[in-house]
Parts: sequence; C-alpha cells; structure tokens
Amino acid sequence: MGAKRESYRDAGVDIDAADRIVKVVRKQARATFTPEVLSDLGFFSGLFELKGYLEPVLVSSADGVGTKLKVACALGRHHTIGIDLVNHCVNDILTCGAAPLFFQDYIAMAKLAPETVASIIEGMAHALSEVGCALIGGETAEMPGLYPEGEYDLVGFIVGVVEKGSIIDGSSIKAGDTIIGLPSSGLHTNGYSLVRRLFSVEPQALKIFYPELGRTLGEELLEPHRRYYPVLKPLLPQIKGIAHITGGGIPGNLPRIIPKGLVAKIEKGSWEVPPIFSLIQKEGNIEEQEMYRVFNMGIGMAIVCAPGDVERLTKAMPEASPIGEVIEQKKRERLIIV
Amino acid sequence: MGAKRESYRDAGVDIDAADRIVKVVRKQARATFTPEVLSDLGFFSGLFELKGYLEPVLVSSADGVGTKLKVACALGRHHTIGIDLVNHCVNDILTCGAAPLFFQDYIAMAKLAPETVASIIEGMAHALSEVGCALIGGETAEMPGLYPEGEYDLVGFIVGVVEKGSIIDGSSIKAGDTIIGLPSSGLHTNGYSLVRRLFSVEPQALKIFYPELGRTLGEELLEPHRRYYPVLKPLLPQIKGIAHITGGGIPGNLPRIIPKGLVAKIEKGSWEVPPIFSLIQKEGNIEEQEMYRVFNMGIGMAIVCAPGDVERLTKAMPEASPIGEVIEQKKRERLIIV
Repeated sequence: MGAKRESYRDAGVDIDAADRIVKVVRKQARATFTPEVLSDLGFFSGLFELKGYLEPVLVSSADGVGTKLKVACALGRHHTIGIDLVNHCVNDILTCGAAPLFFQDYIAMAKLAPETVASIIEGMAHALSEVGCALIGGETAEMPGLYPEGEYDLVGFIVGVVEKGSIIDGSSIKAGDTIIGLPSSGLHTNGYSLVRRLFSVEPQALKIFYPELGRTLGEELLEPHRRYYPVLKPLLPQIKGIAHITGGGIPGNLPRIIPKGLVAKIEKGSWEVPPIFSLIQKEGNIEEQEMYRVFNMGIGMAIVCAPGDVERLTKAMPEASPIGEVIEQKKRERLIIV
Repeated sequence: MGAKRESYRDAGVDIDAADRIVKVVRKQARATFTPEVLSDLGFFSGLFELKGYLEPVLVSSADGVGTKLKVACALGRHHTIGIDLVNHCVNDILTCGAAPLFFQDYIAMAKLAPETVASIIEGMAHALSEVGCALIGGETAEMPGLYPEGEYDLVGFIVGVVEKGSIIDGSSIKAGDTIIGLPSSGLHTNGYSLVRRLFSVEPQALKIFYPELGRTLGEELLEPHRRYYPVLKPLLPQIKGIAHITGGGIPGNLPRIIPKGLVAKIEKGSWEVPPIFSLIQKEGNIEEQEMYRVFNMGIGMAIVCAPGDVERLTKAMPEASPIGEVIEQKKRERLIIV
C-alpha cells in the first residue's frame, strides 16, 4: 500500500530514448547501404550478401579509440570520434589488402544522450560512405553506474573481403626491400592516456592556441585518424606488406609483418616528425625511445615493396617517402632505428 | 635536469601486460579455430575463408552483456560472463537461421587485469567451441580514468552465414500459426540495472540463500544466457520466424518478426514463470506490464511455425511448448497478452 512502484526508467534505463535513437541511427545508416545489404537497422542482426568473389577470405577487426574519447567529451565534439573509429578499423583490415564491406558499432554510456549518439553516428556514416562500407547494425547500451556522467565508450567492428590469392601478409618480403612511410595526421588514436597526464584536457586548456601547432591543442588532439584505403587500393598489387602504426608505435607494429631472419631498419630524419610529438616530448621530458614506442611519430602506415616499385608508389602517393629498408637479421633484434 | 621522466606506464598504460594477455588469449583462441581460419591471433585482423556456400549471406551482430557485469565483478566470477556474451550473439544471428562462423571481442578496463581477462576469454572460448565458432581476434583496451577500478565493459561481434534461400525472416508467417516458447535460464542479460536497484549486489548480499530460488542470489543472477543453436539447428527448415527475447522483453521483440496486419497473441499461464521473476516483482512492487517489458519472464526465444509442425518441434525440444498464436490485427495493437 503506497509502496513506491519501481520501473526500469527509475533504474536509469530509458527504453523509449533507446527507441528514439534507433530512428535517428537508421536514417544515417541507410545512407551507407550498398546493394548487398539485405536488412534494415533495428533487427536482431545485419544481413549482407556476399557475391562476385572466387575464393573470398573475410577479414575482420574490432577496435576502440582509446581515451581520445576524453578529449571529445571535454569539447563536446563527437563527430570526428566516429570518423576515427571507422578509419582505424578500415586501416586494420587494409593491412592484408581487404576491401571494407560492412561495419557494426557499440556505444555505451551511463545515460543515453541522443544528440551525442547522433553526432558519433554521423561521423561514422560519413567515413563509411567514403570507402563504400555499410553500417548494418550496432548496439547502444545504457549502463548506469559503469560510465562517468557525460562519457562513453565506443567500439567498432568491421568485416572486409580479399581474394585468397591476393592476401598481403608480408611473406614475400626480402632483404633489400624498401619501407615506405605514409604520413599520419597526428596522434591518430594512440598515446592519449600519456597526453592526458601531461596536458590538462579541461575545455579551457584545450582552447589554448599553440603557435608551433598553428592551432589549439584541442583541434590538434581531435584531428581524425587518417584514411589510407582510397590511396592504397589501386596500388595493392605492388605492395608486399602493410603495417598499421597504432599502439606500440613503429617498434610494436612494423616487425609483425617482417618474415623471420629479416629485420626492418628505419632511418630517423627521413621523414618530418610533426610538431605535436616534439611538444609532447618536451612537456613530459620523455625519452626518445619511449616516444617511438607510444606514438606513431608521424608515420600512420608503413608499407614494404620491392626497390623497383618505389618510384611508382611514391609517384602515386606524393606524401609518402622511403623511411628505411629490410635487411638480414644479425642477432635477435626486431627493429633497428638509426 | 632531474625532471621526472614520464612514460606510458606512469600514465597507467602497461604495454607489457598487454603483451602477456595476448599470449594467454592466443592459446584459448587457437582451441576454437576451425579449418577456415587463416590467421593467428595478434595480427591486425582476423582472416576466415568462406567456402562451400552457393549464395552466402553474412549475418552479423554486436552485443554487450549490460550491467550483469556488475554482479560478475562483485563476485569475482568472470567465466560465465564470457559464456553470456557468446550465447547472446549466437542467439541473435540464429533469428535469421544463420550458423555462427567467427567472433571478435572487446574488453576495456581501467587497468589490465590478466587473470580477469583470461577468465572471460576462457568462458568465451568454451561457449564458442560448443557451436563451432572461431575466436579470430579482439581488442583488450586499457582506459585509465574511464572505467571504475576493478570493473570493465565487454562487447562481442559475431559473423555467421545463411544461404540466401534459407533466410528466416518471418515473412511467411500467417494467421493461425503457432508461437512456441523456449525456456530461458533466468534473466539472461537483461534487466540488471533494475535488479541492482532492488537488491544489493555487494558480495555478502549476493551470497544470501533464497529458498524460493534454491540457491544464492548471486548464483541465480550469474546463470549464463542459454544456448539455443544446437537444439534449433536441425529444426530450422520448419521454422518461419525466431525472436530473441532480450531488452524490451516479449513486447519489445516478438512483434519485430510478425508481418504487417498480423499480431502475436500470447497466453500468460501457458508456461511457468521462474521464481526469480516473482521475487523481483514482489521486491520492487513492479507492475506486471513493466515486468514483461523489462524481463524475458522465462521465455528466451519465441519461434513461429505452422500448426502442423508443432508436434514435431515440441517433440524435438521437450522443454518448449506453445505459448500463443498469430491472429489478424484488429486495430493497431502490436502484441496481445491475455
């Protein structure tokens, strides 16, 4: 008698808000649909018809964007985070030469914020359209008590395809091959936990203009992860190996594609390290070796090709340039930076 | 001079711990590999060769397990949460008749806890092996400052396949068809935010024995999401529609597969509602309608078939029983519960 009636809404979960989000998301997602998509959003699963391949190999990856999210939340700018998520995933499957097919996302927050979700999805849908990839589903989860108020986590899952005979896996790499670096657009999505320790990510601090960056710290830190698929796509037949320079930097990623008995030798000074990295290094008094292990240092992708293909590749990608070569391994070193 | 040198480890990110986790995960994941898996774990992406299908349609889903995680963390039991995640995803794609192919996971926590991750992955790998699905990749993210100490979020992504001509989508459902309910094992992964409002999820409270449950509250709340694929797989040709009863309960999920102009009529009392739901309803003084909208009320999957197939299906699934029928829609009602 008179006892309070509990409902799911009292518990902080708003099923109606979830329904409203589905409607917003559906519109953005539909704009990314390719003819292979057989389902609409809001079903239990996404359906994608695979046709036109002789020996299809599905290539998939799951990724987050790390604590770059904290910067986005501080500035209330969520569009570019959606772009980050997509481009990171597309770059990951591009390492074996795969073309993106479809994408699913997961967004979790303490309390559903339809505007924030709409903004993230808008960025995702934009980046997906640029590479012909369909957003065929996803999950928006309300998790009261797990996430701090106003913050969220974001995960992307991509599936692409490559013909079995065209898989790029580094196995044909030989001593004497050239390593070409493709410039990053900044930090991409790595090293933000360290950056947040050195610089305040309060809105006011992020709005400070840094002459060496030519823009505010917040603008620099929210610069989206670069998209390499359109430029690399026509060049894939000439490429022997592709390393996506993410967490772990060049030392943590480039050796993953180099065959046993060989080692990548990288020449510092062969490319320009963007000013954000010098700023971080100076601010934290960070050893150079640690900088290379945490950040991409200006190289977003490293590709390996035969010396005879270098001219053709760098002509097609004017921003790319040789940054090292593959040599015989002497001891057990996994990477040489000179 | 003498300034403190910052490193990524100081910032709360431990790349070495991440490397140790990769080793543990790799062993568990390899045990799930099917012959179609062409990659090992630890690469940028997972490779899966698709062969043997005439008109393959890929079916995918992204899911979390909600705040059931909070119960798992309170009791330090993470194995069953891994099972929950997999079974939820497998059930989602089963709604269109898809067989699971491969899976990727995302685990994010404030500070990498290798034992917790190993336990989650062990549960996932176990559940994946049961349905012949390969764990071909995933991401373990350390996000200091986003997650509370000792807690984590967990996301699963699944890809399955169905022949285009065998897609189950409810379109052949007619008035007069029977709705069969498959029992759930408890709450599955829905309604935990409300449960947490009514019952303390402190370890001591979760260890209280409830005579009506025949076990402790913690044991009841951690009961894993039921696996329906093995029992339904041979029966799929007789099934016209499958609804996975998740968030939103029967009213939020069953109407999704019913064609326009028809409506599902469900008979309360045609199945036994497990005691956990009565306990929750009593404790929160919750209206019955709200109970049905939040919880599965004992029905984990609802399937629709022609009346002539009911005997065959219920014989093959002794725990399943008719719970309603499909009738002509009179007004604009989306579900009738009588």
